Amino acid sequence: MAIVVNFEDERSKKAKSFDALVALVKDDLEKVNRAIVDRMHSPVELIPQLAGHIIAAGGKRLRPVLTLASAKLAGHTGERHIKLAACVEFIHTATLLHDDVVDESELRRGQASANALFGNKPSVLVGDFLFSRSFELMVEDGSLSVLAILSHASSVIAEGEVLQLITANDTETSEDSYLEVIRSKTAALFAAACRIGAVVADRPKVEEEALESYGLNLGIAFQLIDDVLDYSAKQAVLGKTVGDDFREGKITLPVILAFRRGDDEERAFWRRCLEELDQADNDIGRAIKLMEKHGSLAATIARARHYGEIARDALGIFPDSAVKQAMIDVIDFCIDRAY
Amino acid sequence: MAIVVNFEDERSKKAKSFDALVALVKDDLEKVNRAIVDRMHSPVELIPQLAGHIIAAGGKRLRPVLTLASAKLAGHTGERHIKLAACVEFIHTATLLHDDVVDESELRRGQASANALFGNKPSVLVGDFLFSRSFELMVEDGSLSVLAILSHASSVIAEGEVLQLITANDTETSEDSYLEVIRSKTAALFAAACRIGAVVADRPKVEEEALESYGLNLGIAFQLIDDVLDYSAKQAVLGKTVGDDFREGKITLPVILAFRRGDDEERAFWRRCLEELDQADNDIGRAIKLMEKHGSLAATIARARHYGEIARDALGIFPDSAVKQAMIDVIDFCIDRAY
Repeated sequence: MAIVVNFEDERSKKAKSFDALVALVKDDLEKVNRAIVDRMHSPVELIPQLAGHIIAAGGKRLRPVLTLASAKLAGHTGERHIKLAACVEFIHTATLLHDDVVDESELRRGQASANALFGNKPSVLVGDFLFSRSFELMVEDGSLSVLAILSHASSVIAEGEVLQLITANDTETSEDSYLEVIRSKTAALFAAACRIGAVVADRPKVEEEALESYGLNLGIAFQLIDDVLDYSAKQAVLGKTVGDDFREGKITLPVILAFRRGDDEERAFWRRCLEELDQADNDIGRAIKLMEKHGSLAATIARARHYGEIARDALGIFPDSAVKQAMIDVIDFCIDRAY
Repeated sequence: MAIVVNFEDERSKKAKSFDALVALVKDDLEKVNRAIVDRMHSPVELIPQLAGHIIAAGGKRLRPVLTLASAKLAGHTGERHIKLAACVEFIHTATLLHDDVVDESELRRGQASANALFGNKPSVLVGDFLFSRSFELMVEDGSLSVLAILSHASSVIAEGEVLQLITANDTETSEDSYLEVIRSKTAALFAAACRIGAVVADRPKVEEEALESYGLNLGIAFQLIDDVLDYSAKQAVLGKTVGDDFREGKITLPVILAFRRGDDEERAFWRRCLEELDQADNDIGRAIKLMEKHGSLAATIARARHYGEIARDALGIFPDSAVKQAMIDVIDFCIDRAY
C-alpha cells in the first residue's frame, strides 16, 4: 500500500494527511486550477478580479480535491472530472460570496472578504455569475446525471442557508434541527462532489451512493469541527477571527450542548449574548469557560468522530488503494484540526 | 385570422394588446402558475412565503407567456413548454430578488419589495433557491439544448448586472455601452424564453434564431420604455415610484441623450445629480424639463420602435396565425406603455 508515510511525531503526521490526498491528484488539481482561472474569465473585468480574490485566497480546494479523488477511486481515466471539479469549486465560491454578504463577514481565510473589499452588490452578482457559469460547464460536460446531482445540491444548500437564517439566535434550537441545517448547507455539496466522481467513471449505483455517503458524513464532521474552532485558540492560526459565531449569535452545536447542559442562570447568559446580542468584552471568555465546564466542545468533537466513522465505513466496498487510504486520512485531518 | 379585436378607442385597444396573447395561451398559463406554486414549495416555509410574495405580486408573466407563445408558434403540441415557462419565471424572479437587494429598492410592482419586507438576507438566499430549482426543473425536462440556452442566458444576465454596477453614476456612458448592458441584463432572458419555444417544438435552427431575435429585440425595446417610464407621469399608474432611477443616479438612455445634447451648464447639473447624488427636491422636475427640451424621451421611444421593428421582422419566416399576430401586438404593447 503506497501511502505517504511521515516519520515525524503523531501530531505532524496528522497535520499532513490532507497533503497526501492532494499529492495523489496533484496533476489533475493543477488542471482544475487552470480551468477555474480560464472559466471565470469575463470581458467585465470586475468579475475575474472579485472571483479571483476569493478563489486565489486559497482555501484548501477540499471539495474539488474530493471530486478528483472520488473519480480516481472509482477508476475514471478520462478528463471529465477536471471540469466538474471546477464546477464544484464555482458553486462553493458562489455560496461563500453570498454567505459573506448575508453574514456581513469582514474576513475570509484571513484576508478581507470580497464584500468588505468590493462591496455587497458585486459580491451578490459575481456569485450569481459563478453559479451560472458552473451550470454552463456542466452542460458542456453533457451529463444529465451530474446536472441533476449538482442542481439538487444547490437547492438544498440554499434551503439550508434559509433554515439557518430562521433558526439563528434561537438558543432552543435542537441538535437535530441543527444537524439538518449543516447537512444541507455544508454536507450536501461534499456529498455531491464525491458522488459525481462515481458518475463520470460510470460505476454502479452502489458506488455512487457509497461516495455520496462518504462526502455527506465527512461534510458533517467538517462543519462540526469548524463550529468548535470558532471557540478555540487554534482559530488565530487559521486566519479566522475568534468568536465570530458568538458575536453574530450563531447557534452551533457547542452552544446547543452548553445551553442544554447548563442551569437557569447560564441559560440566561446564553440568551442575553446570542438572542439579544447584548455582549460585554469578557462574555466570549465566559462562553468558552461554560463550554469547558460542560464538555460541549469535546462532545462536539466526539459527535464529529461518529460521522467520520460512518464516512470511513462507506468506503469499505472499494478495494484498498493509496487513494482510498488518503481519503480516509482526510477524515482524520478534518477532525484533528480541532487540536 | 382569429385575433381578439377590440372595438373601443385606439388607446384602449393598444392597452389590451397583451391580453390577446395571454388569451391565446390561457390554459397553458394556468398550468404554468400551478407549476410555479407547486415547485417553489420547500419544507422551509419562509421560501414559499417570500417567493410567493414576489411571484403573486403579479407582474405580467411576460417572459413565461413568451415561452408559451413561441412554443405555440413553433407548433409544439406537448407539455414540455409548461415546465420550461416556469423555469424562465423562476430565473426572472431570482434576478428580481437580487436586483432589489443590489438597488436597495423599497417597492416592486407597487408593493413593498421582498427585501424591504423580509430583509436582504433571505432575499439573496431565496433567489439562490429559485435559481437552483429552475435548473432542477430543466434537468427534469432533460434537454441539454434548453439547459445550454438558459445557463448561458443566466451568465450573461449576471455579467450585465455587474457591468451596470460599474457604469452606474457615470454620465459619460455611451449609448453603445448602455445598449450592451440592457442587451445582457434584460434582453438575454427574453431571447432565451422565446428560443426555447422552438427547441421544445424541435424546429430547425433558423426558427430558433428567429424567435431568439424576436425576444432579444423585444427585450431591448421593453427596457428602453421602462427607462422612459421612470421619468413619466404614467409611472404612478403602474405602481412604481417616479424618479427612482434619477434618485439612484442610474444612467439610462433618456439621461445619456439629454447629457450629450445639453450644454456645459446642463452637464454640470447631470453630474451633480447623478454622479455626486447631490439632489434637491425640484431637481427631478428640471431633469424632466431638460429631457423635454432635448427630446430625449421621444428619441428613446423612437429607438425602442427601431428594435421593435427588428423583432417584428424576425417573425416574418413564420406563416400568419393568431399567435403570430398577437406576438406582434405585444411589441406595440411594450412600446405604447410610454404613452
